[in-house]
Amino acid sequence: MSRFFSERYSRLKAYTPGEQPKDTVYIKLNTNESPFPPSESVLDAVSREAGRLQLYSDPECRDLNEKAAGFYGVSKNQILMTNGSDEILNFAFMAFGDENHPFAFPKLTYGFYPVFAQLNRIPYKEIPLKEDFSIDVSDYENLGMNIVIANPNAPTGLLLSLDEIERIVKTNRENVVIIDEAYIDFGGESALPLVDKYDNLIVTRTFSKSYSMAGARLGFGIANESLIADMNTIKYSTNPYNVNRMTMAAGYAALCDSDYYKKNCETVMENREEAKKALRGLGFSLTDSKANFIFAKHEKIGGEELYLALRERGILVRHFSLPEIKDYNRITVGTKEQMDSLISAVEEIIK
Amino acid sequence: MSRFFSERYSRLKAYTPGEQPKDTVYIKLNTNESPFPPSESVLDAVSREAGRLQLYSDPECRDLNEKAAGFYGVSKNQILMTNGSDEILNFAFMAFGDENHPFAFPKLTYGFYPVFAQLNRIPYKEIPLKEDFSIDVSDYENLGMNIVIANPNAPTGLLLSLDEIERIVKTNRENVVIIDEAYIDFGGESALPLVDKYDNLIVTRTFSKSYSMAGARLGFGIANESLIADMNTIKYSTNPYNVNRMTMAAGYAALCDSDYYKKNCETVMENREEAKKALRGLGFSLTDSKANFIFAKHEKIGGEELYLALRERGILVRHFSLPEIKDYNRITVGTKEQMDSLISAVEEIIK
Repeated sequence: MSRFFSERYSRLKAYTPGEQPKDTVYIKLNTNESPFPPSESVLDAVSREAGRLQLYSDPECRDLNEKAAGFYGVSKNQILMTNGSDEILNFAFMAFGDENHPFAFPKLTYGFYPVFAQLNRIPYKEIPLKEDFSIDVSDYENLGMNIVIANPNAPTGLLLSLDEIERIVKTNRENVVIIDEAYIDFGGESALPLVDKYDNLIVTRTFSKSYSMAGARLGFGIANESLIADMNTIKYSTNPYNVNRMTMAAGYAALCDSDYYKKNCETVMENREEAKKALRGLGFSLTDSKANFIFAKHEKIGGEELYLALRERGILVRHFSLPEIKDYNRITVGTKEQMDSLISAVEEIIK
Repeated sequence: MSRFFSERYSRLKAYTPGEQPKDTVYIKLNTNESPFPPSESVLDAVSREAGRLQLYSDPECRDLNEKAAGFYGVSKNQILMTNGSDEILNFAFMAFGDENHPFAFPKLTYGFYPVFAQLNRIPYKEIPLKEDFSIDVSDYENLGMNIVIANPNAPTGLLLSLDEIERIVKTNRENVVIIDEAYIDFGGESALPLVDKYDNLIVTRTFSKSYSMAGARLGFGIANESLIADMNTIKYSTNPYNVNRMTMAAGYAALCDSDYYKKNCETVMENREEAKKALRGLGFSLTDSKANFIFAKHEKIGGEELYLALRERGILVRHFSLPEIKDYNRITVGTKEQMDSLISAVEEIIK
């Protein structure tokens, strides 16, 4: 820390992203990326846009917003595109949280929520999960705080039903409820149909997982127009040209190719269910994940031990050192071949 | 504004970017973009990277940082790459400003500085320019505040010498001094050689202007390692994957092609000096801009009037409504052909 660093942030604990090894010798099942490349028309769109890089991107994202509005059945003023969904989440924390408007979220969830709260000096409450890692919806009813819930939750993959989400949103009408749907395309039911009904609901999404665009950085929020306008005030005071031309074009092309991505999601779901079955057969217990990852612990081998043994065999998974989940690993669902390699490696390790 | 918007930001006045018309019928001389496309190898690099978009970008920007370190003669830990230079500026305001550490900057400069200060609730002082729009260096000596100065300054294009910059940096050793060198490649002398001498200096740069990459969003800061580490704490608490794969690859390729971009800068400087001469001949008075824009007022026609008349003729320039400069327009220097069109249009308007 330099002698100039503000007191405000001197105790801030930054987020730690998963390993991103520079070499490609690993089977990478550690950061919930898609195992499938983007569609051909995304590649074409990016190449085309590269020739116009000397011109600023459209700060209003007009074309992409209109496309996404049609796709998700909302108006273009109900959408805000961002540099990954981390950015829309930070904008929402900034816009709606402060000393008098704390945030609540599950104690076990996406590790960035407490960082956003700390960064913006917003008080926050971490609500424990039930013993089976599920969210107790009644904990959130009439809570009187802003709420952020990942649905399905990470790293457990457990899903709340649309009814359960609605109970939370409608009993907290004086606070903002953010539903982070980064993983919703792998088997969950979206809360988007509730956006026009509740003026306190923000749904966030990302192109990183189901749209094979983690490396392009594109996320967005959908909410009623006045919540979007507030977050736009933050955006235009932070980084008006937050989404670059290539990413904008890639997002547009991806939405035009939704059949390709839907099929990929179906493949991931199939591979997930098969891998769950195989892992159960090998002595793992796991949550009923509806995301593109599996959350599993073995009856005999510790979480870190398994992580290291897999790493030695060229397979990266994600291990968290939090006491509650230190016996588990979060394993991204890859291709059939990748999952077969994982299962073989596990068999070798536990035999 | 929604009923949920935090009091913190309810009086925030966001930045207004220049017009970005969707059609391309205009000669765009309003946002200081390069009139030249990126080099061939940038296009190739972007196309190659598009096929790997399913994988996250490297949050540490290792390859690009190493390349830039070699190029600028610093170590890789002295560089932080960001989503445009607006992001590195915001990180610097966040990291080093607070209630007790105000910022100072010229009253007439890049319009985003007061927005960053307001966004982060940092007190700030706007120091008037001299009557000829130049910065009085003595105003900044021993100031005892954090300082940010665009060099050359915008929208005037006026340059401080390296000696003058050093006087400011060395007489404010207890505060951070940011030199925003967005336009330095068009004829200025960089403060980079001072970075190893002064631990309170941050130099910020952008690929938007001289590297024809406004639409790719790539900026960076260079400073001593501990200032960079502080700003990395902010980055990893905000958006760890802030630079996408395509932009990273484009930046790397651009630095490999620096001869192409240097030649473009020389052409812009030639076109600038010719256009200055022609405009003077037509009754304009102008600053001695060392940037890729001209700042000019006519003896007979008002600034807004000229802006509108040019717009009608298909030429966009930037007019600011601030009282001190309302008679002026900021005109980006384009190709020879674009500048000829501008001059012809002006002749027609004032005749």
